[in-house]
Amino acid sequence: MSATDKIKLAKKASSSLSIASTSRKDAALEAIAKLLVDSTSEIVSANKKDLEKAKTDGVSEGLQDRLMLNAERIAALATSMETIVALPDPIGEVVRGMSLPNGLKLSEVRVPFGVIGAIYEARPNVTVDITALALKSGNAVVLRGGTAAENTNIALVKVLQQGLATAGLSSDLVQTVDDYGRDGANEMMAARGLIDVLIPRGSAGLIKAVVEGSKVPVIETGDGVTHLFIDESANLDWSVEIVHNSKVQRPATCNALETLLVHQAVAKSILPKVLKRLADSGVTIHGDEETLALFPAAVAATEDDWNAEYYSLDLAVRVVSDMDQALQHIEKYSTHHTEVIITDSQVNAERFLAEVDSAVVMVNAASRFTDGGQFGFGAEVGISTQKLHARGPMGLKELTATKWLVRGSGQTRN
Amino acid sequence: MSATDKIKLAKKASSSLSIASTSRKDAALEAIAKLLVDSTSEIVSANKKDLEKAKTDGVSEGLQDRLMLNAERIAALATSMETIVALPDPIGEVVRGMSLPNGLKLSEVRVPFGVIGAIYEARPNVTVDITALALKSGNAVVLRGGTAAENTNIALVKVLQQGLATAGLSSDLVQTVDDYGRDGANEMMAARGLIDVLIPRGSAGLIKAVVEGSKVPVIETGDGVTHLFIDESANLDWSVEIVHNSKVQRPATCNALETLLVHQAVAKSILPKVLKRLADSGVTIHGDEETLALFPAAVAATEDDWNAEYYSLDLAVRVVSDMDQALQHIEKYSTHHTEVIITDSQVNAERFLAEVDSAVVMVNAASRFTDGGQFGFGAEVGISTQKLHARGPMGLKELTATKWLVRGSGQTRN
Repeated sequence: MSATDKIKLAKKASSSLSIASTSRKDAALEAIAKLLVDSTSEIVSANKKDLEKAKTDGVSEGLQDRLMLNAERIAALATSMETIVALPDPIGEVVRGMSLPNGLKLSEVRVPFGVIGAIYEARPNVTVDITALALKSGNAVVLRGGTAAENTNIALVKVLQQGLATAGLSSDLVQTVDDYGRDGANEMMAARGLIDVLIPRGSAGLIKAVVEGSKVPVIETGDGVTHLFIDESANLDWSVEIVHNSKVQRPATCNALETLLVHQAVAKSILPKVLKRLADSGVTIHGDEETLALFPAAVAATEDDWNAEYYSLDLAVRVVSDMDQALQHIEKYSTHHTEVIITDSQVNAERFLAEVDSAVVMVNAASRFTDGGQFGFGAEVGISTQKLHARGPMGLKELTATKWLVRGSGQTRN
Repeated sequence: MSATDKIKLAKKASSSLSIASTSRKDAALEAIAKLLVDSTSEIVSANKKDLEKAKTDGVSEGLQDRLMLNAERIAALATSMETIVALPDPIGEVVRGMSLPNGLKLSEVRVPFGVIGAIYEARPNVTVDITALALKSGNAVVLRGGTAAENTNIALVKVLQQGLATAGLSSDLVQTVDDYGRDGANEMMAARGLIDVLIPRGSAGLIKAVVEGSKVPVIETGDGVTHLFIDESANLDWSVEIVHNSKVQRPATCNALETLLVHQAVAKSILPKVLKRLADSGVTIHGDEETLALFPAAVAATEDDWNAEYYSLDLAVRVVSDMDQALQHIEKYSTHHTEVIITDSQVNAERFLAEVDSAVVMVNAASRFTDGGQFGFGAEVGISTQKLHARGPMGLKELTATKWLVRGSGQTRN
């Protein structure tokens, strides 16, 4: 059986799920949650094999941590399954509706995509999370989780398929093409008409390869070169605390702060305090000349720093002459994920919100709030940095399409 | 200047349009409407050159007709511009909004994409229509209208750019890359980060080439192999009139009927009358064996007929054993554009609406109603047959993205 054959199985099974009741779908998620906990020892021992290989291969500790599943993390996966059960089913929602003068009744209703493909790397939690979100929204899934997590994913997919069967749904609704290596990903990207949307999650390189190689429509979940601009009217305490939280709370996330821009009028009064608080938490400051003059512990920034998504305790810092220069810097270097202004000026706040072309634009809050959980979506597929279909944190609704229903009584067109 | 340089000009100009007021955008559309009429003789004489070349090249009469602009058609373009002025501006609409427990205020607002690319063939009206829709929704456009309409498009783009300048907007907002031949289209498809969405309109071959070759997200406006199923409880008069209207009213459109399926229980009582009415209007029937037995004037259908989008007075006809077989036929051959059932059974109507996976699914109405104008959108960019972002007729709203605005008062994440 080829990878494409497996994709066809998912496609075939998807039509039954698209009309399944919410209670049937929720029953499957509950069965999966229970089976996950019951299968803890099998999953952990499969995961050990992947971890050992990762160590042998000299994989970084950060990646090893992402790869690792223990009883606690498996329990957390089961709990997040319950959270998704509690969320409203998006399918069937009437998005728009109208009666036309000729008596035709139109309604645009939310329907599943059909088959969702996910290409990701060494994060076995994505296997469970994305499947749960896909099933709740009536979609089959085809997974390509990378060879580094191969054994773990096999164990997890077995649980997912068993859970589906327990609830009387087809186990074909979850497919993995991990055993086909690169061919699996390539066949997914070529499966136009079978896979309705492809979601890459992982490194910038992986995402770029999928975006450029796929004939299936892609939702890009991208990097965040996140900027924060301290305006001349910024509150000192907010500046110190918001910058610190945005950079330090969890630096290895896409919504962590990477570049700080400071209005020159407040560079002397605010910047040293902001940077001191960061340095005390172990942050390395990569500063422009003016920053270096005010904070000698900084190292000199190069062009690379303005493009860097560090994913680490590093921060690029630049003093700008005014808000125009801040906006120009953001326009040039932003990846259009999240940008923040700290200001007490209503005019500048609204201008920043209007002119910055990013998925999420914030005033006086930490960039770390760009997150499906924080937004109240209950779960997150990823954060879209493209404009088509979905932008920003993606929840269940973003895994659906719509169709138009037209009910008539013999109408013909003049 | 390369095609990519022109695309960059559009990108640069787009930020000013994205924050332009509705009245400013409407003023530009009104100026364009006036200039179109005032420039009738220039446009017609440019169009004559393209028409002469088309004749020399032996282009079909249908295509020549699509290419042709006269005073009446130019006046109609100006009138449709006024229609778009009268439509509400989608930009700034709050799509969702909420206050989080921590006091953050979130709103998801409608924003322009930025730059829309259009790749199309020999339809100069698209040059004007798509530009008007793009400008109203705050987007710059890059146009590739094909060499067959080259002279006409040059004249039209001149009018569009003059209209923008008259209203105090940048004439860079409308760019054409027609003078770069195939390279123009190729550079558009490679312009990820500059063009936000690409809309191909034209032949199946053109659309396939763009879908497969583009690194920019594409909205597929596709072919319609449209099906109509006459169920066993179908009303005879409705069957005759709806089928006739769906096929004959304007056969060269994507929402025209291509395949008729008839429940065997009513094949004898309904089908001959339906086919007689069609044949009287010059329709050639391509029937399966049972159809041939009931209507000897039909020609034998081959596998090609079930896949055909005829765009002409031809219709494929098959007698099916029941609704299951009708649904299977549709699943196999449909292009997921528009499908219709004629039935008096509430159960079958709702089943058809639920199970058919097409952009528009109709009960007891002609397929010709799948149209932005008919749906009350006031204008149409095309009909999307993909599921991502937009499905079915696309109006102004479908030319927009959203972004999230977050207003805080010093919040940090725990």
